[in-house]
Amino acid sequence: MSDSDLYKQSLELHRKHRGKIEIISKVPIATKDDLSLAYTPGVAEVSRVVADNPDLAREYTITRNTVAIVSDGSAVLGLGNIGPYGALPVMEGKAALFKEFAGVDAFPICVATQDTEEIIELVKNIAPTFGGINLEDISAPRCFEILGRLKDELDIPIMHDDQQGTATVTLAGLINALKITNRDKKRTRVVISGVGAAGVAIARLMLAYGFEDITMVDSKGIIEKNRSDLNDIKKDLAKSTNIRNLTGSVSDALPGADVFIGVSKAGVLSENMIQSMNKDSIIFAMANPEPEIMPDKAISAGVGIIATGRSDFPNQVNNVLAFPGIFRGVFDNNLTEISDKALIRVAEALADCVENPERDRILPNPLDKTVVDAVSRAMI
Amino acid sequence: MSDSDLYKQSLELHRKHRGKIEIISKVPIATKDDLSLAYTPGVAEVSRVVADNPDLAREYTITRNTVAIVSDGSAVLGLGNIGPYGALPVMEGKAALFKEFAGVDAFPICVATQDTEEIIELVKNIAPTFGGINLEDISAPRCFEILGRLKDELDIPIMHDDQQGTATVTLAGLINALKITNRDKKRTRVVISGVGAAGVAIARLMLAYGFEDITMVDSKGIIEKNRSDLNDIKKDLAKSTNIRNLTGSVSDALPGADVFIGVSKAGVLSENMIQSMNKDSIIFAMANPEPEIMPDKAISAGVGIIATGRSDFPNQVNNVLAFPGIFRGVFDNNLTEISDKALIRVAEALADCVENPERDRILPNPLDKTVVDAVSRAMI
Repeated sequence: MSDSDLYKQSLELHRKHRGKIEIISKVPIATKDDLSLAYTPGVAEVSRVVADNPDLAREYTITRNTVAIVSDGSAVLGLGNIGPYGALPVMEGKAALFKEFAGVDAFPICVATQDTEEIIELVKNIAPTFGGINLEDISAPRCFEILGRLKDELDIPIMHDDQQGTATVTLAGLINALKITNRDKKRTRVVISGVGAAGVAIARLMLAYGFEDITMVDSKGIIEKNRSDLNDIKKDLAKSTNIRNLTGSVSDALPGADVFIGVSKAGVLSENMIQSMNKDSIIFAMANPEPEIMPDKAISAGVGIIATGRSDFPNQVNNVLAFPGIFRGVFDNNLTEISDKALIRVAEALADCVENPERDRILPNPLDKTVVDAVSRAMI
Repeated sequence: MSDSDLYKQSLELHRKHRGKIEIISKVPIATKDDLSLAYTPGVAEVSRVVADNPDLAREYTITRNTVAIVSDGSAVLGLGNIGPYGALPVMEGKAALFKEFAGVDAFPICVATQDTEEIIELVKNIAPTFGGINLEDISAPRCFEILGRLKDELDIPIMHDDQQGTATVTLAGLINALKITNRDKKRTRVVISGVGAAGVAIARLMLAYGFEDITMVDSKGIIEKNRSDLNDIKKDLAKSTNIRNLTGSVSDALPGADVFIGVSKAGVLSENMIQSMNKDSIIFAMANPEPEIMPDKAISAGVGIIATGRSDFPNQVNNVLAFPGIFRGVFDNNLTEISDKALIRVAEALADCVENPERDRILPNPLDKTVVDAVSRAMI
């Protein structure tokens, strides 16, 4: 299907159904008795019991299976800051995926503010209805503060999918890519292009997993201690990355590197730059919708393994491999947080889902619905 | 069914299903093409179109059919201020009714704050996802400020069901009760006991409909100009009600009255007090769960017509007769507000739904699903 056909069909689908999700009753509402049990007067007893012991909301209400997908529309797909109305179709799609893949009920909350404190306050105030919060498409660096504060201040699990979800699936792909190319994580040289939500989370999770040699590059160059223009997040990363004390741009970081991870933008990576890397290099070019380098070019430049975010090439790094199962695991096991340790187990489980990993098959098929179980089980 | 059996069964039902509503996809999510249309990359075009023209969210997203049921749990059923967790089972029930009766998608938002300004701010911030807001079980007098401000500050319809919903169904029942007892609204003497959310809204809607002789009584007595303990809402009502300048308690207001409307508490009304009213009196005893007077007592005291909020007696004043159809009408007709004029038309339409009103049949059966159409059509 051409892009313009796809877009036309997608518009038609959305218009025909007026959006993608609906809210239905799980209980019968046909007779007077039905009403007496599901609504007044019977519901009064449920309300009394739950009000006396709010923990029982998990047993008697939807909270235990329900996630809020909260977005301010400030960093949507490759579209940027398009606001809450433009974000809604994406969040509805995400809600549909949550249900289809993992039986999780998810509801989009697209908010009319992009103020960090207001978003934090709002999420805390709507939390009683939900068993978990999935932040989505909130731009850096606000997303770090929002995620961190909510993790501290709420007692239900919070995840920012653009951070942890992307990092988890990326790590899963890397685990298999390292296996195929016979590399050891401790000696693998990694360059990450892009230090937004995804780049920061990928670096953090890789460090937690045991990678030691990571160099990060933002739009101004390599993240290094002597740069005076770094925010707190990047200052922090300057301490735990760039052990070679490199300076300059991506092309200064790449010679001799094993892995390039792009969460930046189209055109960042050239064939020459790939050729400066070690043999059998691993490229994750995940800029959306157009990757840092197109797969055909990367292959002709001699890359070992190439992954992208796209469904029309092999090795798609797709968050749908992780987020449904992560929240399934959260709910099935009454978890109160989504820890890096759990996400590393999830990445390993995802890697193991591919029985005989090959260069064009380092990750499970995003449509493989058996993956959810493996991910869910890995959460404990 | 005894109350304790009912409560036990209701708890079982809620535990078995873990709450009462679920969120499902309206579009297929099985193949790669499905994903491309409902999610990336196809959804990007929908997001672009909607971001460019947020009005199109009504065409391409769920907003046009979706209501937020917002409660702080401060005035739930007869249970009082039980907070957001205790309120959730009620709001889920309401969401189930919205869908079953009118095909409206409704989602409960039970909030962790009871601060007026915070609730107003929160509702404004979550509004982009919704085509309408149904406030629920928020205590007076905060509910008046919250409703009024949100009506002013948002461009989607807002309703507080405990105010407008209750007032609309009450007025519908009254219209038929007046018909049966051959009374004219302009000369009918009315006493309203209870000056909370429901009482205030009932008085306002009755005045807008053309009743002229209403006396209101709160827990301290008759609302009259010389009382020094009235809040602004009650001061306002003191000007438009009590044309006889009565003072004292309910029993001072009732002699010679035609109609008693109770939205207060059990025991407020005695047989003697009914006997002091005009012949063929009309009693709406709607305190929840126990009415101001039980129907058998009212009947033995010689009442003409008795209605309650309960499903186990005739003439149930049940908001489910109104709210589903009101929002169906809002969405089908692209309305941006829910006006008193529309609610009066709804009350008249509801009254007309009862073909031959009788003393024990002044309102339609709450389970009659044809009522929704009549209500919806009356909104324009």
